[in-house]
Amino acid sequence: MVTILTDADIRARLRPGDAVAWMREAVLAAHAGRLHTPPRVSTELGGGRLVFTTGALEGEWYGYRSYDSFDTDPGQQVVVLHDWGSGEVRGIAVGNELGPRRVGAIGGVAFDALADPTATTLALIGTGTQAFTQLWAIGAVRRLSSVRVFGRDRERRIAFARRASGDLGLPVTAVESARDAVEGADVVVLATNSPVPVIEPAWVKDGAFVTTLGPKQVGRAEFGAELVDRADLVVTDSVAQTAAYDPPFVLAGTPQQERLMSLGAAIADNVTGRTVLFCSVGLAGTEAYLLAKLLS
Amino acid sequence: MVTILTDADIRARLRPGDAVAWMREAVLAAHAGRLHTPPRVSTELGGGRLVFTTGALEGEWYGYRSYDSFDTDPGQQVVVLHDWGSGEVRGIAVGNELGPRRVGAIGGVAFDALADPTATTLALIGTGTQAFTQLWAIGAVRRLSSVRVFGRDRERRIAFARRASGDLGLPVTAVESARDAVEGADVVVLATNSPVPVIEPAWVKDGAFVTTLGPKQVGRAEFGAELVDRADLVVTDSVAQTAAYDPPFVLAGTPQQERLMSLGAAIADNVTGRTVLFCSVGLAGTEAYLLAKLLS
Repeated sequence: MVTILTDADIRARLRPGDAVAWMREAVLAAHAGRLHTPPRVSTELGGGRLVFTTGALEGEWYGYRSYDSFDTDPGQQVVVLHDWGSGEVRGIAVGNELGPRRVGAIGGVAFDALADPTATTLALIGTGTQAFTQLWAIGAVRRLSSVRVFGRDRERRIAFARRASGDLGLPVTAVESARDAVEGADVVVLATNSPVPVIEPAWVKDGAFVTTLGPKQVGRAEFGAELVDRADLVVTDSVAQTAAYDPPFVLAGTPQQERLMSLGAAIADNVTGRTVLFCSVGLAGTEAYLLAKLLS
Repeated sequence: MVTILTDADIRARLRPGDAVAWMREAVLAAHAGRLHTPPRVSTELGGGRLVFTTGALEGEWYGYRSYDSFDTDPGQQVVVLHDWGSGEVRGIAVGNELGPRRVGAIGGVAFDALADPTATTLALIGTGTQAFTQLWAIGAVRRLSSVRVFGRDRERRIAFARRASGDLGLPVTAVESARDAVEGADVVVLATNSPVPVIEPAWVKDGAFVTTLGPKQVGRAEFGAELVDRADLVVTDSVAQTAAYDPPFVLAGTPQQERLMSLGAAIADNVTGRTVLFCSVGLAGTEAYLLAKLLS
C-alpha cells in the first residue's frame, strides 16, 4: 500500500534544522547535475491552471509536486515520489505544508550561506504562510534577537506576531509600517503578493541580506530595480526557473541579468557579498527531495 | 483521509459497460466545451520524462494523470481528482489499470458509434495491455462472433488468446500472421509499438472499422498513409492532442489533415462512413472522469 502523508504528518515529522540541511544537499546536488530540476510546466483548464514542478535524483527517485491556480483557498497540493529503479510510488503527500516549508528551508540555506554571520535582526514584510515558514527555517539556523513584522492588515500582523512568537519561540513584534520594520534590520524578507514595490531601497542598510519570495516579473514585482542596484550579489535558487518566467523575470534583458548566480554555485564556490539579494523562485524537485527524506 | 484506489480496486469496480457509457459522456462533454482537455505536457529528467495529461469538468472537478518514460516496467501511474469548488483531493488512483481501461473504453465508444452495426468479427494486432482493454470494452458493446489475434511472439499470442477467452468470455484465437487476422475482419484493431506499418491496406475489407492505438507520427507509424486513403472517414478522440505531437501527427501537412474529425463531433452530428479509421490518441481528462465516476 502507498504511504500517504497528510499536513499533520508533515508538521509532526519535518523539523526545520533537518529541512535546511536537506535543502542544502538538494541545492548542491542540483549544482552538481545529479538533481534534475527542469522549469515547471502547466496547463489551462478553464477555471484555472494546473502546475507541475518535477525533479529527479539520479539513481534514487523521480517525482513532482502539483498545485493549481483555481479559485480555491487553500485547495490541496500533491507531492508524488517514485522509485528510480522500479517506478513504483514510494509515497504521496497531500496538503499544503510541504510546499511552503520547502521554500522556507531553501530560504534558510540562502541565509546561512549568504547573510552576515553576525546578522540577528530580521524584518519581515508579509504575514502569510510563506512569511511564517521563512521564520521557521531561519530561526533554526541562527538565534534571532529581534523580528519586526509588517503587513497592511493590522489585526493579521498582530496575530502573526503572536503565533510566530508562540509556535517558534522567536521575539516577534508587529510594527506600524514597512519602514519601521526594515530600517536597521540585518535581514529583510519580502513575502507579499504585491505587484508593486513594498519597500524603498534606501531603507535597507548596507550589508543586509534581502530575500524576495513574492512577484518578481517585469511590470509586476514586490521590489524595485534600485534594490538590485544596491545589492553586491544577486542569487537565485533556480536560474532555469527565472528563465522560464512569463512575463519575464525582472532582470531579463537588463545588464543585471548577467550577475545572477545560482545558490548552488555560490555555496560551492564560497561566493559572498556585502549586500545580498536572494530571489527565491522555487528550485524544482525539492518537494520530492523532502518527501524522500521523510520516507527513508 | 484521501481515498486511494489500487489496481485491484479498479479491476473489481470498473465494469466495461459503465466505462464505455462514461467515456461517451466525456467525449460529448469535451465536444460541448464543458470538459477541458488540453494537450499533455512533460518535463525531461535525465532518466526519462514525466508526462501529465490534465482535465476539468466545469463546476465539478479538475485533475490529471501522471506517467513516465523512465526505464521501468511497468512503473506506476497516478490519477488525482480535485473537487472544483474546494480544491480538495477527492481521490487518487495509483497503478496501471485506469489508463489503458480508459483507452479501451474510448475505443468502445468509437466502435459503437462508427463501426457497421452488423460487425462481429475482429482482428487484433498486438498482445499487450492496450490490446486486452480494447477487447474488454468492445466485447461489452457487442457480441463478437470471432476474434483473431496476431503478435510476432508465438507464445505471447497464444497466451493472450487463452487469457482473453477465459477472462472476457470471447472466442479468441491466435493466428500465424497479421494477414490471417485482418483479411475479412469487420473490425481491425492495431495495438502495437511498431514504428513501421504492421498491415497492408489491401488486406482491410471495404466497410471495416479500423482503430490505431500505436505510433502515428511522421516517420514512425504502425500503419501506412494508404490506409488513410482507404478510409472514408478519419476520426480521433482528441484533435488538440494530434496537433501537439512531436514529431508531428502522421496527417500533419497533408491534405488528409482537413478530413480529421473529432469523435465528439462525429457522435453529436451522427456522422458515419463506410470504411472508418479511428486514431486513438488519448483524450485528456478521461482518466479523472472515470475516477470521478468510481468515487461518486
